[in-house]
Amino acid sequence: MDLASFLTSVLTSFVIFVVLVLVFTFLSRRPGNAPVYYPSLLLRGLDPGEGRRRGTRSPVGWIRDAISASETDVIAAGGVDAAVYLVFLSSVLSILVYSGIVLLPVLLPVAGTDRGLELTAAAGISPKNDEKNNSAPELPEIQRLALSNIQPQSMRLWAFLLSVYWVSFVTYFVLWKSYKHVSNLRATARSTPDFKPEEFAVLVRDVPRSSPDETIKDSVDSYFRALHPNTFYRSMVVTDHTKADKIYLEIEDHKKKIARAEVLYANSKTESNPEGIKPTHRTGFLGLIGKKVDTIEYCSEQIKELLPKLEAEQKTTLRDKQQQAAIVFFNSRSVAASASQTLHAQVFDKWTVMEAPEPRDIIWPNLSRNIYERQIRQVVVYSIVFLTVVFYMVPITAVSAISTLENLRKVLPFLKVVVDRPAIKTVLQAYLPQIALIVFLALLPAFLMFLSKAEGIPSQSHAVRATSGKYFYFVVFNVFLVYTLGKTLFTSLRTILDNANIGVIINMLATSLPGGATFFLTFVALKFFVGYGLELSRLIPLIIFHLKRKYLCKTEDEVKAAWAPGDLGYSTRVPNDMLIATVVLCYSVMAPLIIPFGVAYFALGWLIAKNQVLRVYVPSYESNGRMWPHMHTRIIAALLLYQATMIGVIGLKKFIYSPILAPLLPISFIFAYICHMRFYPAFANTPLEVAQHELKETPNMDAIYTAYIPQCLKPDKLEDLDVFEDAQSHSTSRAPSI
Amino acid sequence: MDLASFLTSVLTSFVIFVVLVLVFTFLSRRPGNAPVYYPSLLLRGLDPGEGRRRGTRSPVGWIRDAISASETDVIAAGGVDAAVYLVFLSSVLSILVYSGIVLLPVLLPVAGTDRGLELTAAAGISPKNDEKNNSAPELPEIQRLALSNIQPQSMRLWAFLLSVYWVSFVTYFVLWKSYKHVSNLRATARSTPDFKPEEFAVLVRDVPRSSPDETIKDSVDSYFRALHPNTFYRSMVVTDHTKADKIYLEIEDHKKKIARAEVLYANSKTESNPEGIKPTHRTGFLGLIGKKVDTIEYCSEQIKELLPKLEAEQKTTLRDKQQQAAIVFFNSRSVAASASQTLHAQVFDKWTVMEAPEPRDIIWPNLSRNIYERQIRQVVVYSIVFLTVVFYMVPITAVSAISTLENLRKVLPFLKVVVDRPAIKTVLQAYLPQIALIVFLALLPAFLMFLSKAEGIPSQSHAVRATSGKYFYFVVFNVFLVYTLGKTLFTSLRTILDNANIGVIINMLATSLPGGATFFLTFVALKFFVGYGLELSRLIPLIIFHLKRKYLCKTEDEVKAAWAPGDLGYSTRVPNDMLIATVVLCYSVMAPLIIPFGVAYFALGWLIAKNQVLRVYVPSYESNGRMWPHMHTRIIAALLLYQATMIGVIGLKKFIYSPILAPLLPISFIFAYICHMRFYPAFANTPLEVAQHELKETPNMDAIYTAYIPQCLKPDKLEDLDVFEDAQSHSTSRAPSI
Repeated sequence: MDLASFLTSVLTSFVIFVVLVLVFTFLSRRPGNAPVYYPSLLLRGLDPGEGRRRGTRSPVGWIRDAISASETDVIAAGGVDAAVYLVFLSSVLSILVYSGIVLLPVLLPVAGTDRGLELTAAAGISPKNDEKNNSAPELPEIQRLALSNIQPQSMRLWAFLLSVYWVSFVTYFVLWKSYKHVSNLRATARSTPDFKPEEFAVLVRDVPRSSPDETIKDSVDSYFRALHPNTFYRSMVVTDHTKADKIYLEIEDHKKKIARAEVLYANSKTESNPEGIKPTHRTGFLGLIGKKVDTIEYCSEQIKELLPKLEAEQKTTLRDKQQQAAIVFFNSRSVAASASQTLHAQVFDKWTVMEAPEPRDIIWPNLSRNIYERQIRQVVVYSIVFLTVVFYMVPITAVSAISTLENLRKVLPFLKVVVDRPAIKTVLQAYLPQIALIVFLALLPAFLMFLSKAEGIPSQSHAVRATSGKYFYFVVFNVFLVYTLGKTLFTSLRTILDNANIGVIINMLATSLPGGATFFLTFVALKFFVGYGLELSRLIPLIIFHLKRKYLCKTEDEVKAAWAPGDLGYSTRVPNDMLIATVVLCYSVMAPLIIPFGVAYFALGWLIAKNQVLRVYVPSYESNGRMWPHMHTRIIAALLLYQATMIGVIGLKKFIYSPILAPLLPISFIFAYICHMRFYPAFANTPLEVAQHELKETPNMDAIYTAYIPQCLKPDKLEDLDVFEDAQSHSTSRAPSI
Repeated sequence: MDLASFLTSVLTSFVIFVVLVLVFTFLSRRPGNAPVYYPSLLLRGLDPGEGRRRGTRSPVGWIRDAISASETDVIAAGGVDAAVYLVFLSSVLSILVYSGIVLLPVLLPVAGTDRGLELTAAAGISPKNDEKNNSAPELPEIQRLALSNIQPQSMRLWAFLLSVYWVSFVTYFVLWKSYKHVSNLRATARSTPDFKPEEFAVLVRDVPRSSPDETIKDSVDSYFRALHPNTFYRSMVVTDHTKADKIYLEIEDHKKKIARAEVLYANSKTESNPEGIKPTHRTGFLGLIGKKVDTIEYCSEQIKELLPKLEAEQKTTLRDKQQQAAIVFFNSRSVAASASQTLHAQVFDKWTVMEAPEPRDIIWPNLSRNIYERQIRQVVVYSIVFLTVVFYMVPITAVSAISTLENLRKVLPFLKVVVDRPAIKTVLQAYLPQIALIVFLALLPAFLMFLSKAEGIPSQSHAVRATSGKYFYFVVFNVFLVYTLGKTLFTSLRTILDNANIGVIINMLATSLPGGATFFLTFVALKFFVGYGLELSRLIPLIIFHLKRKYLCKTEDEVKAAWAPGDLGYSTRVPNDMLIATVVLCYSVMAPLIIPFGVAYFALGWLIAKNQVLRVYVPSYESNGRMWPHMHTRIIAALLLYQATMIGVIGLKKFIYSPILAPLLPISFIFAYICHMRFYPAFANTPLEVAQHELKETPNMDAIYTAYIPQCLKPDKLEDLDVFEDAQSHSTSRAPSI
């Protein structure tokens, strides 16, 4: 890639971005698009018009709005999790800005005035590896401003060496400040005076099998009543309510159908046909076959039939499908916090307690898995993930090999017509492997989420964190390392295995990395211009929304479902940002020109994410910034990768002072350890200090209890709560033991 | 070593043992020796006569007594710790007995009827290594019954291979049962109805520096009163009381001197001299120089002078020498247990809480070390221990080299007279290196204990565990591995470093170990016959006691101090037993003849330890079996060493099925992990289940509080308790905040 094509590529991306921003500016002013551009405001009952009107005044109004919004506004709109995500973006941004302030004015002149590349080219000797040799003469203008242009053993390398220290210490400083800030955010969020059900509850797992004539509910009650005599409020045993849920959803579905049919019926009553046409549908597969029935009548009948079924199933579920897990409620926050941290049983595989997740955050089927099952599942999942990360390229290559046009023609002869046309053939032949790659990559997050949930994790937020972690290692390994090392990795795999030695790996990184600088410059540019353009303009949700509204949605609820914005999707968003952070960090000293691109990426990312948080996305759970330690660890992992690489790269320049960099690795580990020791416990558990804060009002314990009842088991009236509870415990008509 | 000398050595040891047992039987019957043989009984106010009388009837009476004593008796006499130590001995005993039952009848015939050694000798080819070649012909009778006698690739190796599995599973089974048993012992001990001060207290460290106009006591009080409004009872800030302690000890010393002088004075009042001679002493160095004074008068005056000083110092200590640690008391056991497990502060380096150790168990100066200091100290100590374990032989060799006779003569010329006599010279020359070794080995436990305390560990019992762990690794490395591998290790250190590979180490172990079998047979025999003989007969304490009583002790207190038995000394006892267990385990399949010796060692050990626990030693603290997880881990470490060795040894016989042994290593790790997960938490923390048990009576909170006041600060009357507490908090005459 020469300079011209590099500039073309960056410019193209930029033009696309500008077009998309203009599209956004234009489309977001139209009131009909409000549900796509301001769903969060609409759901919170605010008037999107204000923002729109301000937007009318100036096309960059949304930028002003995003910048002027305070952290409190962000927390109000998207919760602490969104605020923490913004802190993450701004932390990386600060690291890059502080680094750039020193590195750009210092390193660019130092590198630009040396003549390492000229000398290498003149002498005709090949640099350390072929790839670099190929790329170096192609793009001398950019390479000249990078470490490659420094002559070996030059004293100019001191500037690069000290820059590595500068970047590292900037990272420590920013991370420390951010961790402190997030820690305070979390503490503030957890000590607000309004009560949250999860703060009064404790999740109990591994409830031992009680005697056959006692329900699990009874044994939970008697156990906790004995251990917390004055503070135990109530308990709710987790049930296997899949069947009840199925019936409940069926009823809901029928209700929706009736609503839709009624709208259709009303619309059909035109003046010419005042009677209207009663909507009908077929009862068979997908409404295509089977008997034709009147929708409203049929569905009402179905509901009538299902309701008693649901009631019976609810009773059976509560009484006979109790699982070995329960949610226990206490009458004060600090007691619940303390109970969740206290060992209850003498043997660890019974009565395991932990903080209860938010009701909407719970993954019900995972609650009842016992501790051994969880351990085994974790081991299995980790092995699968390891194999996936390392051997991901293998199935893709295999699929691309099998799915050649020739094979496709044999298996699916009806494609012949299309495939045999020369023009289509060429295009398909070129893109089939890429399509395979894209399909596999698109399936990956869902696959990783499935794996994370299979671990037996009790909450959505935790599963998202687990997925994000797995995805991070995947992208760093497969995009960054595999691209950089490329073929070298696989040919020299034998060498690595023979000398299982970290030194070899660092060396290999060091020889391969400088060659990749230009690729990643383009990559970052493309990623943020096009990616953020699409994100901001929300073109795809917009199109889907309008199509749905026009052709499918009949009732208000259906329209609402069509523009439901979902949440921020941390599980793919964070690892992708982390990939960019890793790339930019690793190249920051080697090719400082990447820093402005990184700064642009994270600045724009922060701006757009803030806009989307304020106006678009609606959080589907609140984990009070539990994600932060996870992000922190991964930034440090990126820093370690960067430091190890730099030790190798500067060492390869035959610079005798390069061992001065070695202490950075242990310093990073010590920094990580100190942060973990100092801040992490308050993320893993609720400190008593925080739980102790006064509440605004006496908590409504019934409401807290009700919040945890699954939708399909919820009694119609609050007064039925006792009946609900009794259904669990009195199955053997025994008085609850005390 | 041939068979004759082996038998001689074992027989000699046995004769010494029998003589010592006879000496014990004879001496323990004499009433004058009761304080040496029955100190524990005396201190508990029991009549040692009963035991003695029964002992009179039969010389093996003590054996009957020891066997018939139940675990409850043991706990009553020596606490749970002693009972756990006995469980440890009996567990190893069971492992060896179960192993022996199968291994001896199976392996001895299998090995004895093969002719591997004959063939090797006949062919004149050298076996795998030279050492074995040297030892094999020397002791064929024993080697013939061992693995060495099996021909390579023989199907008889199946018997050995399956034996490794048998021993491993026996170990898992016994360890699981023992862990369960000890876990119950601990739970029972912790839920007894009589109250113990430490169960109501929590140790708080890293108390943040309060504002200058507030004492630490005030800030502790206000913090805990806010977080535990209904359950907080009182707090006691740890003070730096070294100076007060010094004055207090001085007073006590003077009091002792007066008591002694009064006895001397009374004794001097004979009929011929009814006035008596007033005892005098000199005030200078060691009572050798200085003015001669009347002891009673002088000491009384000194006490009179010191008492106000002590009082003033007590006040200063309480007010101005408060440290950043405190003991906080709660009004119920379960609240204290829960509080000790709950995170209090939002940042982890403040308000760290943990269970309070027993008052007598506390190491006061360590309490106030802050969390960072503790971490740094731990790292430094671990490094020193690592260096000590690995390079222990170096200073010894160096000292032996320097302390040759020639050098000694030069440095200490006055030794010339002794050293120049030929007879003495020969003996000295032969023994000087051994003396150096013995001196170094004798200093080691004290050195390791010093290191463990320097880590900042808050309790004696924890320091003992830490010392024991360090000592275990030391003996296994220096006695077992270094002896076995001998010179091979150091010559092939380069090979190991070059191929940093666990396989090489296993191979080396496998080639060297079989040669050591005979040495260790003798070692175990010597160790237990002579060691246990001395232990049982208590010859050295007996001689010291009689010498002291005759020449030094004048008052009752002095006599009592002369026979004070001390505690069991787990820090050296456990690692020494573990060394034998490791040796016997490692040789159990290679040379099954070692098993009877191991069984004898642990059976006798159990018997004698039980006797000593019941009659001699007095526990100086009670940690409720906290030592067990430590022992358990080390038995598993020994098992892993054994399994790794056996994989190597059987592999060296070119037995193609030897990889069948490989799964044993992961199985052991999984077993260790499951045990840890299941049982360990109840050792690290107090489960609520256990803390909840009812108390016999309402606890006397004042007594609990008083138990933690250091001797030198204790007020004379219980009523002064409030004054004592106020001295800490009211220094600024501020009312305690609520």
